[in-house]
Parts: sequence; C-alpha cells; structure tokens
Amino acid sequence: MLKTHFITGGAGFIGSNLVDRLLSDEQRVVVYDNFSTGLECFLQQALANPNFKLYKADLLDVETLNQAVNGVDMVWHLAANADVRFGLEHPRKDLEQNTIVTHNVLEAMRVNNVKKIAFSSTGSIYGEPSIHPTPENAPFPIQTSLYGASKLACEALIQAYCEGFGFQGYIFRFVSVLGERYTHGHVFDFCRKLIDNPNELHVLGNGRQRKSYMYVQDCLDAMLLAVKQCNGKVNVFNLGVDDYIEVNDSITVITKRLEVSPKLKYSGEERGWIGDSPFIWLDTSLIRSIGWLPKVRILDGVAKTLEWLLSNKWVFAERF
Amino acid sequence: MLKTHFITGGAGFIGSNLVDRLLSDEQRVVVYDNFSTGLECFLQQALANPNFKLYKADLLDVETLNQAVNGVDMVWHLAANADVRFGLEHPRKDLEQNTIVTHNVLEAMRVNNVKKIAFSSTGSIYGEPSIHPTPENAPFPIQTSLYGASKLACEALIQAYCEGFGFQGYIFRFVSVLGERYTHGHVFDFCRKLIDNPNELHVLGNGRQRKSYMYVQDCLDAMLLAVKQCNGKVNVFNLGVDDYIEVNDSITVITKRLEVSPKLKYSGEERGWIGDSPFIWLDTSLIRSIGWLPKVRILDGVAKTLEWLLSNKWVFAERF
Repeated sequence: MLKTHFITGGAGFIGSNLVDRLLSDEQRVVVYDNFSTGLECFLQQALANPNFKLYKADLLDVETLNQAVNGVDMVWHLAANADVRFGLEHPRKDLEQNTIVTHNVLEAMRVNNVKKIAFSSTGSIYGEPSIHPTPENAPFPIQTSLYGASKLACEALIQAYCEGFGFQGYIFRFVSVLGERYTHGHVFDFCRKLIDNPNELHVLGNGRQRKSYMYVQDCLDAMLLAVKQCNGKVNVFNLGVDDYIEVNDSITVITKRLEVSPKLKYSGEERGWIGDSPFIWLDTSLIRSIGWLPKVRILDGVAKTLEWLLSNKWVFAERF
Repeated sequence: MLKTHFITGGAGFIGSNLVDRLLSDEQRVVVYDNFSTGLECFLQQALANPNFKLYKADLLDVETLNQAVNGVDMVWHLAANADVRFGLEHPRKDLEQNTIVTHNVLEAMRVNNVKKIAFSSTGSIYGEPSIHPTPENAPFPIQTSLYGASKLACEALIQAYCEGFGFQGYIFRFVSVLGERYTHGHVFDFCRKLIDNPNELHVLGNGRQRKSYMYVQDCLDAMLLAVKQCNGKVNVFNLGVDDYIEVNDSITVITKRLEVSPKLKYSGEERGWIGDSPFIWLDTSLIRSIGWLPKVRILDGVAKTLEWLLSNKWVFAERF
C-alpha cells in the first residue's frame, strides 16, 4: 500500500539512504531537514522523484513542522545532534536538538493525528554496561554522556506518548553505523587526518576501545522489517552486528587501504573522551528473532565506507 | 561545618520541611521558589531566621538563577511539576518544569562551580515494573507517563553532568510522600472531597491500586543520611517503606477519622488514570544498608497527615 513517510534528518547519512529505499519501494516520502549536517546532494535522486517532497526547515520551528506533518502516515525521527564527543562544549545542544525537538515532533504528530513513530536511539544509553553483549532489558543504566542522556529522554517521551495518546513506537538502539554517505565517526576522522598528514596519526584513547559497526543497508533492513512485522505499543530493538573490533583494527584497515604507514600517537586513556564508552557491543537476539540477519561484517563495512569516502573526497571539506 | 544549601521548590511540601530541618541543624539555607504550588506560610519560621534567604523567582529565569546559586555549597533540586495525573492535558509542562528546568539548575551550578546535587526523582520511572519490590537496578524500564519520562530525563542529565563535569549526584526515587504540609495526592483528594460531600466518594480506578507511602520526616532522614555517608559519583537510592496498602485501605482510615460513611463510586479500571502505575513498591535494601530505617508505618503516616489536614483546612481552598 502506498504510504507517506515523514523523515526528519532525511538529508543526513542514514536518513537519505532510507529516503532512497522507500522511494524505490514506491512509497511517498516527505523529508524535513535543516541542513545543519545534511547535504542536498544526498537527495539528488529523490528530488527528481514526483513522490518526494522536501522541507528545508528547523524542527524548533513548530509552525512549519505542524504543517509538514499533516497527512503523513508515519514518522521516522532520525534528526539529531550526533556530535557525541563535543557535548560538553555546548551542554544545551543535546537538550535542544534531541530532547526538545523530539517533543516538538511528537506534538506535531498528536495535533495531526499521526500515531506511528520510528526513532534512532543509540547504544550509548547503556552508559558503561555491566553485561556484554548488552540486551534491551539490561539493568537500569547510569548515563555517561549528554548525548546518551538526551537520547534516553527522547525514548522516554516516545514511550509516554505511546501509553498516553495511543501512539505506536519503534525505538532502535544503534551501534555506530557506516557505509555510503557516512560523514562522521572514527573511520571518517582517521581517513581525513591521514589524507591530510600520512606520516602521523593522533588517536584519542589507547586504541583498545572496542566498538561495533553496522552497515547502513543492514540497519535499514532491520528498521523496515521491525516496523512491518511488529505490532506492539512500544517496540525497542538493539541493532548491531555479532562482533566488535578495536579502534586499532580500524586503523590497520584504513592505513593499508590508503597505503600509508603513519606513526601512531595515542592520547593513552582507556576512553577516547569523557563519556566515550570503551566497549559498546549489543545483544541483537531480539531483532534476529523476527528474521533479520546483518549481511555485511564489520571489516567489510569499513572497507565499503573507505571506498565511498575515497570516491567522494569532497566530503572532507564539508563542515559537519 | 556550616554550609549553604540551595533548595529549589523550598516553599513546597518536602522542600519546606527540609528547610526547617537544615536551619535547626544551624545550616544556611537559600530557597528558590516560584510559588506556583509552594506556600509562603510554610516558610514562616524560616523567614525569621538570619541564616535563611528567599528568592521568589522562576527556574526558567536563568539570569536570576545563576546569581542565586553563586556561593552555595550544594543544591537540593526539589522543584517540579508534580501534577502526574494531568500530564496528558498539557504535554509541554513536564518537559519545561522538570527537564528544561533541571538543565538550567545544572548549568547554573556549572557556571558557579557548585558540584553537589540531590534530586527528588520518583518510583514512577519504573513504569509498570516486572519485579516487586523493585530494585534500583531493575530491568531497563518503559515509561508510562510524561511525568515519569521527564524525571528520567532529569536523572540522565544529572548523571551526564557527574561524568562530564565532575559533579556528585544523589538521586532519590520516592514512593508517594505524606505528612505535615502535604498538599496533593490520594489522601488530600479524598479528604477534600469528603469534607465537601460526606455522602458520596468518587474513586478513580477500582480501589485495588497498591501504593506505598513514606512519611516526610523519614524521607528527609534518608536523604540527609545518604548525602552525609555516600561519596560515589552517582548515588541512586529508592526511598520507601517496607509494605504497601490498597487505595481502599486509605479510604477506610480517612472515612473512619472523618466519621463519615460515604457511598463509594468506583470508575472501575485497574489504573486510576492513564499512566497511573497500579503497583508501586520499591526495594529499599540499598538505603537500609547504610543505616536508614523508616520510623513511621504507612497507616500511621496517613493518620498524621489527616490530623494536619484537619487542623489546616484552609489548604483545601488553595489552588494547587
């Protein structure tokens, strides 16, 4: 059935990939993006499609938002301040761009009688978990970053709207996602730095931080499947792959592909920065139980990402 | 040692009782309250004390807040929209009065280099828990009310400031509190209704909702002890009593004391209202392990509250 999907942050990395998937499935798509980090070129294909509509606007602009949500069938709320690392430099940003904006999206839905929302949360909300891999019903966590705290606040708001206003919510707790149009994170940073200076690489932390990365198309498969299959009031899913790598492993793949042999300089701490979780690895049995399997392994995902970055070096000049 | 305590919501029920306790312990106290539900008469004693200072101001007024926090030693952040039941009628209120205001308090502390905060959270953040009594590390809950969602957002913000800015946080998850100066909740509502009309009492829900109530002085004992004894970065404690009663039990005590025999009319549902948890009972082993014991049992607490309400019937005419 033809439906209209409203995608916040639809000009971003994951958002624009979702736009293309939905349009190729002959759905109607409305993107709402303030282009603070989104890029219009990611929507090049979409803009030529009659089933596509674009709002260049901010989610703090409640009036435009309320108009834009009118008549849509479901919301994919992917817009966020994804700048986890520098949260401490601007403590209001996560509150405003994540928590308050999510409230605005939910209110726009309520006013327009739109009741289905999918939301990109994060494995960071488990803080520094005591259980690895970490399941969705892990012990009540303690937050360690303003980013995680704000995403938890968003999850909680969505859940309360599900209970209070009959919404249906799909909450996806991601590990890091990479792939085509990836524009921030370890692989991006290392790649940019090494193109800039192939002789030396400064690494935050001791390089032993363990991270899990998921390929963007696998991530989309999981979200689309869950929304199709699950009919609960609040549906919470971890999304990630079965294993993890160390930051050092990424560095090996990247330096090999770039054919450089930089001197590695580690800042040395266990954590890359304050609030960085030294070990994110999620238990994904729940999403697997409904039939999802990631197709791309971590190092293959890193390799695909590198190919895209090297074919699109202009992204390194963009301000994110 | 003489310290200066900054108490938000210090003209309210729990806040004003804390003010009196700290002043009688010869501490300095600064109260910041917008008197939206607080009452100046609760501060009558305090206002005569040279160690007491009062700001009549709103926590959304960041400039006044930043000035007021200057020079204090610790913050007791008790101000909140405590109107759990009507959250759905004004969905922005919890966001603004709880989440955003807590952000403002934390920022005022950061700017003024004040690093210790105690916070009144709630057992509502466990939603409808699977474990009774519910421990602090219960499985990651799903929120069922905007009030609970906003308190969780506050907890998360405090935790992130502890990790990111070296704060020390004391988070207290209360059951319902009652006692002298109690001005909202079941006992208050029933009492007011029965004085108004002794022949009939409308009860939300089926009367079988199980609730735990804690006496306000026991609550203060617990908070003061935890702040004194515990030196962790983030200290989370459930506060409550060892047992629970049904709403019907409260009704029996109240009608007996008022010497009335109303016809009881139940709305009939398992929950009193959307988002009402039919069973709040917290595991308090953690706070007991540091030496706290509640002195007043639930029904004695209800009785003390009734005596205070009947000696201060003017509160029923106040707008809360």
